[in-house]
Amino acid sequence: MSFDRLIEKIVNTQNPSVVGLDPKLEYVPEYIKDKKFSKYGKSLKGAAKAILEFNKGIIDEIHDICPAIKPQAAYYEMYGYEGVKTLYKTIKYAQEKGMIVITDGKRNDIGATMEAYATAHLGLTDVGGEEIAAFNSDALTVNGYLGTDGIDPLLDMCLKYDKGIFVLVKTSNKSSGELQDLMIGSKTVYETMGDMCERWGSEQIGRYGYSSVGAVVGATYPEQLEEMRKKLPHTFFLVPGYGAQGGGAEGVAKAFDANGLGAIVNSSRAVMCAYKKENCPAMDYAKAARREVIRMKEDITAYLPKISI
Amino acid sequence: MSFDRLIEKIVNTQNPSVVGLDPKLEYVPEYIKDKKFSKYGKSLKGAAKAILEFNKGIIDEIHDICPAIKPQAAYYEMYGYEGVKTLYKTIKYAQEKGMIVITDGKRNDIGATMEAYATAHLGLTDVGGEEIAAFNSDALTVNGYLGTDGIDPLLDMCLKYDKGIFVLVKTSNKSSGELQDLMIGSKTVYETMGDMCERWGSEQIGRYGYSSVGAVVGATYPEQLEEMRKKLPHTFFLVPGYGAQGGGAEGVAKAFDANGLGAIVNSSRAVMCAYKKENCPAMDYAKAARREVIRMKEDITAYLPKISI
Repeated sequence: MSFDRLIEKIVNTQNPSVVGLDPKLEYVPEYIKDKKFSKYGKSLKGAAKAILEFNKGIIDEIHDICPAIKPQAAYYEMYGYEGVKTLYKTIKYAQEKGMIVITDGKRNDIGATMEAYATAHLGLTDVGGEEIAAFNSDALTVNGYLGTDGIDPLLDMCLKYDKGIFVLVKTSNKSSGELQDLMIGSKTVYETMGDMCERWGSEQIGRYGYSSVGAVVGATYPEQLEEMRKKLPHTFFLVPGYGAQGGGAEGVAKAFDANGLGAIVNSSRAVMCAYKKENCPAMDYAKAARREVIRMKEDITAYLPKISI
Repeated sequence: MSFDRLIEKIVNTQNPSVVGLDPKLEYVPEYIKDKKFSKYGKSLKGAAKAILEFNKGIIDEIHDICPAIKPQAAYYEMYGYEGVKTLYKTIKYAQEKGMIVITDGKRNDIGATMEAYATAHLGLTDVGGEEIAAFNSDALTVNGYLGTDGIDPLLDMCLKYDKGIFVLVKTSNKSSGELQDLMIGSKTVYETMGDMCERWGSEQIGRYGYSSVGAVVGATYPEQLEEMRKKLPHTFFLVPGYGAQGGGAEGVAKAFDANGLGAIVNSSRAVMCAYKKENCPAMDYAKAARREVIRMKEDITAYLPKISI
């Protein structure tokens, strides 16, 4: 999609942030869990149904002020195939409400297998001549360690179905530097990966200057955000690590261009658990999530020019 | 598990190979698809049910002569949550028949999220105090691009539940060299990753000298197999790329130690599609798979000493 659709949603909401739906069961209010456990037992199905209701509640409250959600596949796989069913239904529900969905799966494999992942998450699966959407997300995070033939099938899918990918470049965790900061000649591993993103995206540049190949660059490394923003002018950034992981709004602002575009900042736990921090009734968890989305938007945009295309 | 259980199965079967169950729907005989499509329609559910029957047929025929299967997660995700249910059932069925299961998911993320993946694929998920297995595989392939804190949660799980991981080091695809062969000082990226495997596994070395942290090293690069076998004495190798991708048995033999141990070689398509190559009746697809497993075992072990512990 060259991220055109995402960029337009960001401009419309004046909000360059995405809510990470990484629903640990402990984040879900007791009253939702009690209801589902009494119906389905303390089972993976019961957990998955509780998470789906929790997610829908948040989406209902934020879809008009937030451009996108980013479900993290791991937290759905943790509840087995029932959890994966909840991932599917969460994606569908958010899209029906007009949101963009970025599936955070960090998928990677050799060409033929990557085609299967690309089909699963971004494309349509052929079943005896019928074309059926397995997950149908708008974008997928991927790991580029395997090189170009592990990325090519995704590029085809981006072009065909108007989708995007985010390649891991510099991740937000503490030990990200163990490999990513090592020097290959005069460049770090993450700079090398960043250059590959520019190259992979070079034939799919959209209306607003950004290609369909984005990069994950952590909020916890502001100097690297600034440096990468300059060096990768066509690469849209997905920025994890704001808030809970320690990345502040001033640092995060370095990921953006002169139009207040070029990046989307993720927050997961702070939104999902806003009701705990506020100490408000659990029934109001979704309204608390909305308040946190507004707070975050104001925090980040305070350091940005007016977002415009 | 320090791969002890896997090594014992290899010795018992005298077979250092693993069957990759990467079931593209086109590999499944028409008579199975017809049966399932007439019951469930041309749907993701119909496809998933056909793949499950196909897998079970192969497992029935090979479980006594082959130590392990390696289902590739991408080919199950392609059929949505119904496909993921088939992955779960395939794992369970193979384990009930005494086989080791390596889930090929190449998962990777920062610490907290990697813990969710580790729980999903190797551990037990807590649901309101009940501990439930989501996928319960014996080993998982992972990508180490994020460094130690993306690996630590897996190490805990390996120790607690007697499981193993295989970290991508040198993959079998053509463009694997774009990043993996670049030089970091005097070492390539893949050697650097290999050293990290030895370090991560150093506190979990099993009875036969191999740790619970293995490495993926492609059959398509025999010199690198030989070099890595020498440099990584405690790291068990999962070797993809034999056969269809061009890796021959003589080259693959370089992945093994003096006892004929230290590696397990994967074959997917050649086994699943043996009936097509043999041009035998589709009803005999599982028997043809068994014949190919025997052929492969003889091909590889011809270049090895007797496998012993």
